[in-house]
Amino acid sequence: MKMKLILHVLAILLAVIGLFMLIPAGIALFYGETECFKAFMLPVLGFIPVGIGIYLLTRSNRNRTMSPRDGFMLVSLSWICASALGALPFYLSGAIPSYTDAYFETMSGFTTTGASILTAIEGLPYSILFWRSLTHWLGGMGIVVLTVAIFPLLGIGGLQLLKAEAPGPSVDKITPKIAHTAKYLWFIYLGLTVLETILLMFGGMNLFDALTHSFGTMATGGFSPKNTSVGFYDSPWIHWVITIFMVLAGLNFALYFKLLTGRIKSVLIDTEMKAYLLIFGLASLAITVSLLRNGVFDGFGEGLQYAAFQVASILTTTGYATTDYDLWPAFSKIILFLMMFVGGCAGSTGGGIKVVRIVTLFKLSVRELKMLIYPRSVFHLRLNKMVVKKDIISVITGFVFLYIFSLLVTTTVVASGGYDILSSFSTALVTVGNIGPGFNLVGPTMNYAFFQPGIKWFLSLAMMMGRLEIYTVLVLFTPWFWKKL
Amino acid sequence: MKMKLILHVLAILLAVIGLFMLIPAGIALFYGETECFKAFMLPVLGFIPVGIGIYLLTRSNRNRTMSPRDGFMLVSLSWICASALGALPFYLSGAIPSYTDAYFETMSGFTTTGASILTAIEGLPYSILFWRSLTHWLGGMGIVVLTVAIFPLLGIGGLQLLKAEAPGPSVDKITPKIAHTAKYLWFIYLGLTVLETILLMFGGMNLFDALTHSFGTMATGGFSPKNTSVGFYDSPWIHWVITIFMVLAGLNFALYFKLLTGRIKSVLIDTEMKAYLLIFGLASLAITVSLLRNGVFDGFGEGLQYAAFQVASILTTTGYATTDYDLWPAFSKIILFLMMFVGGCAGSTGGGIKVVRIVTLFKLSVRELKMLIYPRSVFHLRLNKMVVKKDIISVITGFVFLYIFSLLVTTTVVASGGYDILSSFSTALVTVGNIGPGFNLVGPTMNYAFFQPGIKWFLSLAMMMGRLEIYTVLVLFTPWFWKKL
Repeated sequence: MKMKLILHVLAILLAVIGLFMLIPAGIALFYGETECFKAFMLPVLGFIPVGIGIYLLTRSNRNRTMSPRDGFMLVSLSWICASALGALPFYLSGAIPSYTDAYFETMSGFTTTGASILTAIEGLPYSILFWRSLTHWLGGMGIVVLTVAIFPLLGIGGLQLLKAEAPGPSVDKITPKIAHTAKYLWFIYLGLTVLETILLMFGGMNLFDALTHSFGTMATGGFSPKNTSVGFYDSPWIHWVITIFMVLAGLNFALYFKLLTGRIKSVLIDTEMKAYLLIFGLASLAITVSLLRNGVFDGFGEGLQYAAFQVASILTTTGYATTDYDLWPAFSKIILFLMMFVGGCAGSTGGGIKVVRIVTLFKLSVRELKMLIYPRSVFHLRLNKMVVKKDIISVITGFVFLYIFSLLVTTTVVASGGYDILSSFSTALVTVGNIGPGFNLVGPTMNYAFFQPGIKWFLSLAMMMGRLEIYTVLVLFTPWFWKKL
Repeated sequence: MKMKLILHVLAILLAVIGLFMLIPAGIALFYGETECFKAFMLPVLGFIPVGIGIYLLTRSNRNRTMSPRDGFMLVSLSWICASALGALPFYLSGAIPSYTDAYFETMSGFTTTGASILTAIEGLPYSILFWRSLTHWLGGMGIVVLTVAIFPLLGIGGLQLLKAEAPGPSVDKITPKIAHTAKYLWFIYLGLTVLETILLMFGGMNLFDALTHSFGTMATGGFSPKNTSVGFYDSPWIHWVITIFMVLAGLNFALYFKLLTGRIKSVLIDTEMKAYLLIFGLASLAITVSLLRNGVFDGFGEGLQYAAFQVASILTTTGYATTDYDLWPAFSKIILFLMMFVGGCAGSTGGGIKVVRIVTLFKLSVRELKMLIYPRSVFHLRLNKMVVKKDIISVITGFVFLYIFSLLVTTTVVASGGYDILSSFSTALVTVGNIGPGFNLVGPTMNYAFFQPGIKWFLSLAMMMGRLEIYTVLVLFTPWFWKKL
């Protein structure tokens, strides 16, 4: 392990977090939140110089080659450290009195999960709420760059993330390309955030609410500065704007890159995108019909508005809510439950298993059925009109198995606290899947405050595992990772 | 499709069912259950001559070669017809007034599921209860022969069932071998049943109860002639005898065959067996500890007795209960919930995903983790010290995906009746997995009577899909199956 090289990169992270904390510090100053100003400036004054110091001291390592092993360690440590550091303002300001809770909330932010331990959100200082939402936005940005720009290893759009957020054989060799693609992606991410903010303000939100909700949307995070989430607003405009931007945030960002560079045809043949939009459309319609038949809403328009919002929110793993869907009829809830397994597209800010993996396994299963009838024929599996290699299928199979395994282990850990099956299982689904709210004890009107500290720490790990595509974190627990080469 | 050849085999099934109905008919006579005697004899008098008649009329087809397609049709039709015919005595005697219910109960019997629509069992005539348990035993026998004797295609012990219960390229070519192996297997199955019956009588059961409970055990079925299932008896001897025989019934029957033919070494290296026993042991211990910590039982012995019984019952997909486990602490219930995904060994009478498939995917996932560290190396996947071929991994992956897909579809169908998530999901788990009782509305003290008729028919299909390894039934719904060759 090249720990000094890893430290070198983490030092940049440290300084960057310090820099970004200047924004909420400014907000604290603006609103006269003195305690919060201190709680932000103290870390800022520590992080930036220490970050720069370590960076300079370890600079001699910058040209060393990073192995996959170093990459896994770096990516995991990035989320662990970012959460540990990002939690400080919550803790120091007294907004979240327990460090366990503050860490959970920050990990939930940086992993774009949106599970919250806060019981009363609206009473908190502006600067704290802003930082909370900003962790989403920064986490989302990190994920997009990691998955789309750094690791286009496996050739199929978005599938690069399957080899984990691990650097390729050598990071520095692709640095020029990273810088180039990363710039584009940040531009797209920033552009969409600004656009959504403007549209939300046009619908009557103030700048603060519009910005924080846009952070939560584009990162598919789900933190809202309102106790009742987006349900605080009863404007169809606001609901639809957020619905549409959640769907956009759940798309593979490589598609936007292709659009901007004029490759429209390769966007249109994207198998994953088509499946994703199909799932979104069908699930929204099914829930609308179920809601109308049960008289939950009066008209088709209103029903569709609430159904589409909730489907987009769960499918993209955002976790906003416009109403308490836990009170919806059984059939509607089951559709949402199914959506919790799916997730966004690969290369988006969404979590979950990801549409492309489900599509691949679905196609594989259909092929196996076909081979029962034509046992001597060979059928290739295609995505985006290209044949999928067998190695990739193994990677996907392993991923989905480990994902389900992680779900079941998390369920067991949560249940050890004495909670019922549905609460335990849905807690696992929405933390590993980076969604946020689930059913029962963790329903959309509930929060995570009541869990025992041990379970909160485990759930922080679960959120990180899900966010970093399981492999990245699990590999650290294998003997091979620690073996001397 | 060679419909006449299929009809030829189904005619044998018809006559055999008629013959076996003579046993409950005799019991009806013995106990003076006149109505029941008629309800059995009417089908007997129809089935046997009609069966023989069709058999003779279609006899010219008997030497034709059966294609996989014919095999799928034959296997599916066998369970559909057997249930349709086997349901008649229940219906004609008035014991189950609705034919939908009678069909559900019989399908539940022949698929060795053990889900019951009966609300009061002990009031029913002996002959009816006997037939109910006998459907388990016959179904279990059918499954063992299908999976172990007829389809040893893929080389790995028990894995033959992965290519579905489908005949190989040609049925008649392996007929001498079938006859030979089938004889052995029936002997083992019969022997274990007789042994269990004797041991249960030794523990104080009467012949009738001992026999019916042995049928339910060896078939991993779960129908009991008692309202409170095995909980009716508070004898540790009876509980332990049934626990041990459930575990034996969940083992690959090919292992007994190997034992009898002296191949002890190849039994000892069986990966699936070791994993199965390990899962059984760990889950039993975990639940025992959880039960004792929550004060549900007083001593370790008693706790282990109830825990091991329930783990064996759920893991092997039997579905007997000695207590209402739905009242157990959350952690114990979660362990049972996990067991519902697993199932018995391949080539046993147990249902579920099967241990060997889970072991294979687990090993695959571990290999993928290892390959993240050693990306340029090749690691083979081994079971029973033999390398698993890539094709088999694809078949397993497709199977598990379709299994989960079937679970989710079944959950959705059940939820459309307005039932809560846990009830709907556990109903899917315990019907597709051929277990029987689940949680909440389908808990161990509940029954399936309250479901709408449409859902009962769907669940009958779900039980059959699970029993016939998903592929066999799903392939009938593909366009390729119906295409002219």
